[in-house]
Amino acid sequence: MSTADGDEGEGARGRGSERARWPEDKTPEGKVLGKSSATTTGPGWTKVSCPCCVSEQIEPLVLVKLGAKVRPETKRWLIRLIGAPQKDGGAALLAHPGEDASGDIIVVAAPRCTLLRAVEELGLCKPYRDGDMEAFSYDDKDNFIESDNVEVFLTLAERQYIVKYELDGLWVQRDLKVPGLSDSFVLKHRDSIWQKLVSAGVVVDMVPLHNPGKLRELGKTWYSGNHLAQPLDAVNEYFGSSVGFYFSFLDFYTWSLLPPAVLGLSITYFSGEAQKEKESVWGSGVTTAEDESDLVFSGHMVQAVFSMIWSTVIMELWKRRSSTLSYRWGTLNLTERFAEPRPGFHGEIGVNPVTGRVEPLFPGWQRDLRMALVSVPVVGLFLGLVVLGMTCFYWGEAHIQQLHKDWDSLLTQILLYVPSVLHIIYTNMLATVYRNVAQSLTEYENHREQSAFENHLTAKVLVFTFFNYFAVLFHIAFIKEDVPLLRKRLASLLIISQVVNQVTEVVIPYLVDRFISTPNRAETEDDPQEDKFRNESTLPAFPGLFAEYIELLVQFGYLSLFSCVYPLTAVLLLINNITEIRTDAYKICKLFRKPFSPPVANMGVWQLAFQVLSFASVMSNCWLLLLSPQLQELCQQGKMSCTSILLMAVLVEHVLILVKVIVAVLIPDEPDWIRKKIERMEYKSIQALKQ
Amino acid sequence: MSTADGDEGEGARGRGSERARWPEDKTPEGKVLGKSSATTTGPGWTKVSCPCCVSEQIEPLVLVKLGAKVRPETKRWLIRLIGAPQKDGGAALLAHPGEDASGDIIVVAAPRCTLLRAVEELGLCKPYRDGDMEAFSYDDKDNFIESDNVEVFLTLAERQYIVKYELDGLWVQRDLKVPGLSDSFVLKHRDSIWQKLVSAGVVVDMVPLHNPGKLRELGKTWYSGNHLAQPLDAVNEYFGSSVGFYFSFLDFYTWSLLPPAVLGLSITYFSGEAQKEKESVWGSGVTTAEDESDLVFSGHMVQAVFSMIWSTVIMELWKRRSSTLSYRWGTLNLTERFAEPRPGFHGEIGVNPVTGRVEPLFPGWQRDLRMALVSVPVVGLFLGLVVLGMTCFYWGEAHIQQLHKDWDSLLTQILLYVPSVLHIIYTNMLATVYRNVAQSLTEYENHREQSAFENHLTAKVLVFTFFNYFAVLFHIAFIKEDVPLLRKRLASLLIISQVVNQVTEVVIPYLVDRFISTPNRAETEDDPQEDKFRNESTLPAFPGLFAEYIELLVQFGYLSLFSCVYPLTAVLLLINNITEIRTDAYKICKLFRKPFSPPVANMGVWQLAFQVLSFASVMSNCWLLLLSPQLQELCQQGKMSCTSILLMAVLVEHVLILVKVIVAVLIPDEPDWIRKKIERMEYKSIQALKQ
Repeated sequence: MSTADGDEGEGARGRGSERARWPEDKTPEGKVLGKSSATTTGPGWTKVSCPCCVSEQIEPLVLVKLGAKVRPETKRWLIRLIGAPQKDGGAALLAHPGEDASGDIIVVAAPRCTLLRAVEELGLCKPYRDGDMEAFSYDDKDNFIESDNVEVFLTLAERQYIVKYELDGLWVQRDLKVPGLSDSFVLKHRDSIWQKLVSAGVVVDMVPLHNPGKLRELGKTWYSGNHLAQPLDAVNEYFGSSVGFYFSFLDFYTWSLLPPAVLGLSITYFSGEAQKEKESVWGSGVTTAEDESDLVFSGHMVQAVFSMIWSTVIMELWKRRSSTLSYRWGTLNLTERFAEPRPGFHGEIGVNPVTGRVEPLFPGWQRDLRMALVSVPVVGLFLGLVVLGMTCFYWGEAHIQQLHKDWDSLLTQILLYVPSVLHIIYTNMLATVYRNVAQSLTEYENHREQSAFENHLTAKVLVFTFFNYFAVLFHIAFIKEDVPLLRKRLASLLIISQVVNQVTEVVIPYLVDRFISTPNRAETEDDPQEDKFRNESTLPAFPGLFAEYIELLVQFGYLSLFSCVYPLTAVLLLINNITEIRTDAYKICKLFRKPFSPPVANMGVWQLAFQVLSFASVMSNCWLLLLSPQLQELCQQGKMSCTSILLMAVLVEHVLILVKVIVAVLIPDEPDWIRKKIERMEYKSIQALKQ
Repeated sequence: MSTADGDEGEGARGRGSERARWPEDKTPEGKVLGKSSATTTGPGWTKVSCPCCVSEQIEPLVLVKLGAKVRPETKRWLIRLIGAPQKDGGAALLAHPGEDASGDIIVVAAPRCTLLRAVEELGLCKPYRDGDMEAFSYDDKDNFIESDNVEVFLTLAERQYIVKYELDGLWVQRDLKVPGLSDSFVLKHRDSIWQKLVSAGVVVDMVPLHNPGKLRELGKTWYSGNHLAQPLDAVNEYFGSSVGFYFSFLDFYTWSLLPPAVLGLSITYFSGEAQKEKESVWGSGVTTAEDESDLVFSGHMVQAVFSMIWSTVIMELWKRRSSTLSYRWGTLNLTERFAEPRPGFHGEIGVNPVTGRVEPLFPGWQRDLRMALVSVPVVGLFLGLVVLGMTCFYWGEAHIQQLHKDWDSLLTQILLYVPSVLHIIYTNMLATVYRNVAQSLTEYENHREQSAFENHLTAKVLVFTFFNYFAVLFHIAFIKEDVPLLRKRLASLLIISQVVNQVTEVVIPYLVDRFISTPNRAETEDDPQEDKFRNESTLPAFPGLFAEYIELLVQFGYLSLFSCVYPLTAVLLLINNITEIRTDAYKICKLFRKPFSPPVANMGVWQLAFQVLSFASVMSNCWLLLLSPQLQELCQQGKMSCTSILLMAVLVEHVLILVKVIVAVLIPDEPDWIRKKIERMEYKSIQALKQ
């Protein structure tokens, strides 16, 4: 049953009497089987304070898990708080205590007015009467299409994020004690209630709830079956724009691998033709038939130049695509900087000069100082530790190999593996420590907006992770200057990471699904709603998009930084990504809890990372071409002076960088029609200001 | 006398009866000696249609010069047109036919409402009641400080620009014939009236009128006397923000030359100490005492690295200063793109998707296409012609020198000068042709906004002029690779350009003023107002700021591109610029007609040019250091391999560029308080939009 039927009013908390509704399950959208009532909503739910929000259907959005030892009076206090209007310091949401009033969950839903007000606060755009997207305004809500039907007007992800946003945003208006907690636990003025409750162990977790009907539909068009295109709008609708952007980028990036893949294949084919008789022209370094080796060399050159220009063009086109998506998903004008600061933000209470609200303030120069004097040196230190680890590893390996040569026993044979093992352990430990350090550093920087916090945290972890991945390759390419080794290493890394990916992302998920998830799912068909919710909350938490993005970035790094060394990179990546799309989709739908996903306007710091990499690739490729045996030979044979070859390489590098800069400037960041829409919005707001 | 006294109402057009007012002359601001009248304004002026604009004082703002053969009926028609309200297709300004109704001038003034409406249209910011600058709104005018007194509320430059803006913006609402002109001259719907009249020879010129009182005051604090600081706000008030920005930049740039000048002096001093016994270590290329030559070399190195970082820091700080000025002068939010297109713009009539107005439209892709397929190749062609000219010059010179050696006669002696003379003629002709071509190309590109038009035109001329100036130096530095010659050439260029500047900008202006302007001025004391106006219009037109900016840019080029070659550059430039400030100020005040100056928010394309130069300087300096005899010697002696020296230089270059990019990103483009003001404006407009 999907309606909030059952006896109303009375505190019916018995099993089965409280069944939340799934809109798609059996009843048509918006139609109710139960008797219509104007007084309140579902049974067990807190009352709505605003008459226009009374509705007979309540969609449970978020499950709040409480600590096992939470006393019933604390739970009752929390439910009251969640339901209280915002002017009284509450969240103006709807709360349900679950079947057992003293159980450890609270189900939270949101009334229409709270949702719409939050939409205005977040600065989301919604379709206006005239067909354009426009920043939503609560007072003007009747002019927005479908604004009276929030389940159509807002995406599921938006509704769930708003619940989290409201709960996170609760702050103490005057000092108070929480019933059922020790007297020493006092909420002080301006404290973030939710953070305090989490740190006190009252609230353990917050889980957005799946909508099985929608999820099934989404899965059908997304990963089961043979669809070339992903249902990106549906992904945005269900998982939110940050997930939507990831999958859009994955999609875009995968298709844009086609040209370099085709080029790589043809170069490999033609150079393969050329060296049919000989083995590994580049690898051996001994060339007899010069024409053929020249062919290989110029093939690599073409590949390198192509991929350098390609990477800029792709990133510029992505920016255009990204702004189109952002317009479509209504996140073009997010106004986070005008909203309340994020819960973790602290500072002296004062009047915000921009909004005029009383809130904590923290001077920007102090943040800059903290970044410059603390964050940058600490991050540098950790990068130094990576280099130190690598140096020790090479030193240890050389020594032990020497030892093995000298003694040659079983012991030394085993000892040979010790440096690698130690290095792996060291690297992993370092990464774990670093992640915590990065978190604390970013906390310490005290960013006002959640997105700034996320971006700074991501940037820190990103730099370290990337460095960690590439340190060895850089060492081979720039210190050892050993192109054949680099080539071997790159090929093995690509193939190994491919295999590892396939195993971790296809095989393991499949096994998990078959033997762990499916038995669970089988039981739930006739179970009460609440048990389904509980089941969901037992799934592992979604690990976030960092791992997914860094995988793409590392790929992109292999491809662009060392493209001239191994032309088949793009082909391997293309194959990998086509399966990656499916497995990532499957993972997020089935194997993890649904994540909260804030509305975002773009990929944030990842965009920048890809662009930086694309510029770094020019230097790396020019360097690698310089190291190519053909040029080295020319130089040694004295046919051309080393200096003039080097000068030429520098010239080529500068020209390529110039071309990339020009391409980046010339391709506008948003399509013409989006630019016009943005200007139209600006014009409207100027006109409005004048009146 | 400064009031609009004399008999009112009657068409008193006799000599002396119409005297426009100079507010500062004798009467205190805003006070009138004549009888107060509510019906109209000064005698002879057209009537004001709007009752709130009736005032007894009319400040003549602009003088329109008509062609000598213009018939009286045409003049009357034009005066009616200027005075007609905007809804009837007029300019809603005030016009006065001058003493002689059939004379060849029209004096134009502006009533309050027209001025204020134009301020709103241009998007100028003015001080609001709460002390912040805010985009002016006509409906909300009472909340702006002093908005009822336009002569305080608006600067003189703004009032005059608005007159020009309104006249330029006149367009034909339905086809009409102009009385007194031939029947073949028909104004068609949507034609720009003013452009048509100019091309028909009816209107010859438009001159903003000086305000002698204010001008005298400005001169006192600007160029006469020993002021260290320029009265920039007064300059902005009198000459407008584009002139204001030029002088602010000149000021800022001059003071920022201090650090490199001090460094250059000390390096020259210490290296002078070191080479007391020897002559010209660098120049001769023969080094005996290596320590000392190393000292010189490392001095040049320090100078080069310093100036490379310095140039970026300076440009970033200037951006901050520029945004502060722009806030102060109310030009931060110009809304040109939302206003009517510029008069020369043509396209198919349609509905502007942004503003919803009916106006000519021209698709952006078509403009891009024209730029890519026409403008870029043509500009490239002309740059090629410069190179061709230089090549011919070198070729010719070499041949003639050979000839002179072989024959050695008086004829060949004279012939020796021929290539230089031909080259100079060629270069000048090319520059003239190019300027016209650039104008037509930019017209053809059909930019919608005047500022875009100006920027594209400036960019074209700028690239060519700069190339023209530097082609020879680049040739010496990069093709001939002759550092001593470069050094000599640079020193002589700097000194010659200094001397030429001083002559053209101090001596000639002084002579002109003494012997040409002063006699004129002497007569005017008791002359009727109109003759003073006529005198003003006989001054040469202000040649624009292009020449001034390019001078600075070329200076900056000498300084940054070749800083390591001649450390005293900054010293010479500093001396030059300190006098330059005075002479430029004197020039614009006394020697030319007052220019119209549109409100601008920054230096436009010049900002970019300086920044590009600052990056190019890294490459050029690294290259020049590579060419230094010390390194060349090391290389030849085999102490270090050429390749490793080269590699090191490339590394240093990359690091420097990276540092510059980081510095540019880290220094915010506007000061914190401006950012907050801007955010506040945004916030207000979002709030306004929601209501």
